[in-house]
Amino acid sequence: MKKINVGLIGFGNVGSGVVKILREKKSFLSEKIGVQINIKKICDKDLITKRDISVDKSLLTKDVRDIINDPQIDVVVELIGGIHPAKEFTSEALKKGKNIVTANKALLAQEGRELFALAQDRGKSIYFEASVGAGIPIIKALREGLVANKFYNIFGIVNSTSNFILSQMSDNNCTFNDALSDAKKKGFAEKNPTLDIEGIDSAHKLTLLVYLCFGRLVNLDDIFIEGISQVSLADVNYAKELGFQIKLLAIAKKVAEELEVRVHPTLIPKSHLLSSVNGIFNAIYVSCDLAGNLLFYGPGAGQLSAASAVVSDLVELTQDVRAGMFRPTLNVRIDKSIKKLRKMDEIKSRYYIRFMALDKPGVLAKISGVLARFGISIASVTQKERRRTHVVPIVMIIHDAKEKQLRQALEIINRLNVIKQESVAIRMEEV
Amino acid sequence: MKKINVGLIGFGNVGSGVVKILREKKSFLSEKIGVQINIKKICDKDLITKRDISVDKSLLTKDVRDIINDPQIDVVVELIGGIHPAKEFTSEALKKGKNIVTANKALLAQEGRELFALAQDRGKSIYFEASVGAGIPIIKALREGLVANKFYNIFGIVNSTSNFILSQMSDNNCTFNDALSDAKKKGFAEKNPTLDIEGIDSAHKLTLLVYLCFGRLVNLDDIFIEGISQVSLADVNYAKELGFQIKLLAIAKKVAEELEVRVHPTLIPKSHLLSSVNGIFNAIYVSCDLAGNLLFYGPGAGQLSAASAVVSDLVELTQDVRAGMFRPTLNVRIDKSIKKLRKMDEIKSRYYIRFMALDKPGVLAKISGVLARFGISIASVTQKERRRTHVVPIVMIIHDAKEKQLRQALEIINRLNVIKQESVAIRMEEV
Repeated sequence: MKKINVGLIGFGNVGSGVVKILREKKSFLSEKIGVQINIKKICDKDLITKRDISVDKSLLTKDVRDIINDPQIDVVVELIGGIHPAKEFTSEALKKGKNIVTANKALLAQEGRELFALAQDRGKSIYFEASVGAGIPIIKALREGLVANKFYNIFGIVNSTSNFILSQMSDNNCTFNDALSDAKKKGFAEKNPTLDIEGIDSAHKLTLLVYLCFGRLVNLDDIFIEGISQVSLADVNYAKELGFQIKLLAIAKKVAEELEVRVHPTLIPKSHLLSSVNGIFNAIYVSCDLAGNLLFYGPGAGQLSAASAVVSDLVELTQDVRAGMFRPTLNVRIDKSIKKLRKMDEIKSRYYIRFMALDKPGVLAKISGVLARFGISIASVTQKERRRTHVVPIVMIIHDAKEKQLRQALEIINRLNVIKQESVAIRMEEV
Repeated sequence: MKKINVGLIGFGNVGSGVVKILREKKSFLSEKIGVQINIKKICDKDLITKRDISVDKSLLTKDVRDIINDPQIDVVVELIGGIHPAKEFTSEALKKGKNIVTANKALLAQEGRELFALAQDRGKSIYFEASVGAGIPIIKALREGLVANKFYNIFGIVNSTSNFILSQMSDNNCTFNDALSDAKKKGFAEKNPTLDIEGIDSAHKLTLLVYLCFGRLVNLDDIFIEGISQVSLADVNYAKELGFQIKLLAIAKKVAEELEVRVHPTLIPKSHLLSSVNGIFNAIYVSCDLAGNLLFYGPGAGQLSAASAVVSDLVELTQDVRAGMFRPTLNVRIDKSIKKLRKMDEIKSRYYIRFMALDKPGVLAKISGVLARFGISIASVTQKERRRTHVVPIVMIIHDAKEKQLRQALEIINRLNVIKQESVAIRMEEV
């Protein structure tokens, strides 16, 4: 049976998962796919920390050139994360004629333009199934399964840390901080959780989904990104009372000839499947012209879940390598009907708004007066408590308004003397 | 650009959808995939009925040999349905060196053993993405995306007609017959809906899912099949009150060294995603060892939805054909840990049971006495109405019981003089 040699760069959590699967499922896989996948070398700068799998010392190296310069290695798996030196390693490997498998969404979101072009130029592939939704085969679905479709929009819950925190808040009445501590304790949040809770990781993943669906590699700067660190338990609960769940959504939405690309906490109706995606689970909801509205759901984190995706990429590549072919199966094409990205100011949305106001007559008249001046109409309003002379929350849902106009209105409202805290506005999506 | 010639057998609803997509998206697809997919010939026994797309007369033929014997045709798309002559056409095409794309679940479920072996023997592929879940790329997910996984179980809502009917009953309080008429009116049920409502279509699809997940082509006779025609509105409503939805599930479940393969109406908790799959939507929920629990959801019917899947198969095949390769990417392997199929008598399940009994003292004692004799214990029981001397429904949920024992107990209970109608038992799944 033909053997395909793999070099693994990055022997961390997912890396050792990959080694574990390839070892424990050696015959299972080779019987299935007719090729033997052989890990020929593993490179990591840290060869001391104990892994949950032991490997022959001869496999290990600290020198990445032992992989990149080895002509017998066909595929390089990059699992070190971050931009540098991951970028240097992958581009050198491509130049040496190797195919790449990576889980590195940050790398592809930021340096994808250069790396994909290089791969194309060298007749090699970069596969990245593990970069979004861990073991959910969403990348394959978009690039192959739905290849004949034009896409309208994507709504993704793609960050497990944030979804775990929001679920804890909603299900167990935890504050954000308590939920975050809990996530850290359970290993669902990193020591420094910024990338996750501030929406940046979601934006990286959204970039890749947008690339596959619309053919454009959007700059991170062009994505509106708002994380969940400002979501309060009160808003989670008020939203629930109104029939909504707050989820951190990665959104790409085609509106006329423009594309909206944004990441932010979003109220979605409880009746929608996405609102039932809890804990570390991820789900990607896509709408397209032929296959309609689809949802892909599964655990978005976990060593073996991500490693499952890495191995599926490896299988596809080894089957190609064995056949001696280059199949440009990313199947990416620029959607020419999109003329530009829509600026955040210009997007239209319904909003959930919470004002903290004095409980006295005329407050609502003042607020709604300002909103009216900006042409914003109110769908519903509830004062949550009665506490005369105290500050009370007024929860409002407004009909479609332009972001810019809403911001201007809120700025004025926030300066009213009956308003005692900065108002909270959270976007809503019908999905 | 390389051109791949396709012969289409069956110019019905899905067939004309395929022609429409390939024509309207010609440049879209060729830019994406780098190959031109060319429909060279269309065969149908009926060339008179008007289609929603007009094609050049020179493309049409009534003689299937114009396709099978054409050496320039690389791929044959079979969309006539049924076993004969679909089997003869596909096997002849394989023998002539053509790859096959089909949406024909009945054909593959019944004749798959012979056809897959023939394809393997000739170094050709049979792809069948459209056969389960229309445009949902579930086949690709199982054979490629989750290639490294061992599967534990599958729970599928895979018949749109049945799901539409059950949703109508649950959402709009319709009887089965009214919901069926409505489905017919809306084009969601055929004139003769037997295959759909009696669970046979679901069993065909389950056969294919089981083949991909467990490597066995199960005989239809070995699948326990119960349709939805006996599901009453009363049971749908009682189930709802208890927090469940009734869905027609296609189930494959590994229990110890045996595999349960069955199709029947099933109570599933409202909290589970599957219970929110409504109307013509399908969903396949799979559990596996690495990627965990995944759900794939989308419309299970519709011309373009199914055609989307056919075209995705065509794209994959054309990319392979262009590269001059045979990639045996069904990636099927027999799960040797499964020693046999579990007989229906032997399965264990919780059950929802409705007895129709006289409303007088001692009835429950009699019923529960019989159940106790068979070691069946009751989880909850509710008498739904009070109408002394009349027949009232007693709704019971029982803990895990063996099918055989439950059937024996019910037989005895049905003969009690306080029981006035045959008792209804519906299986439950925790999922």
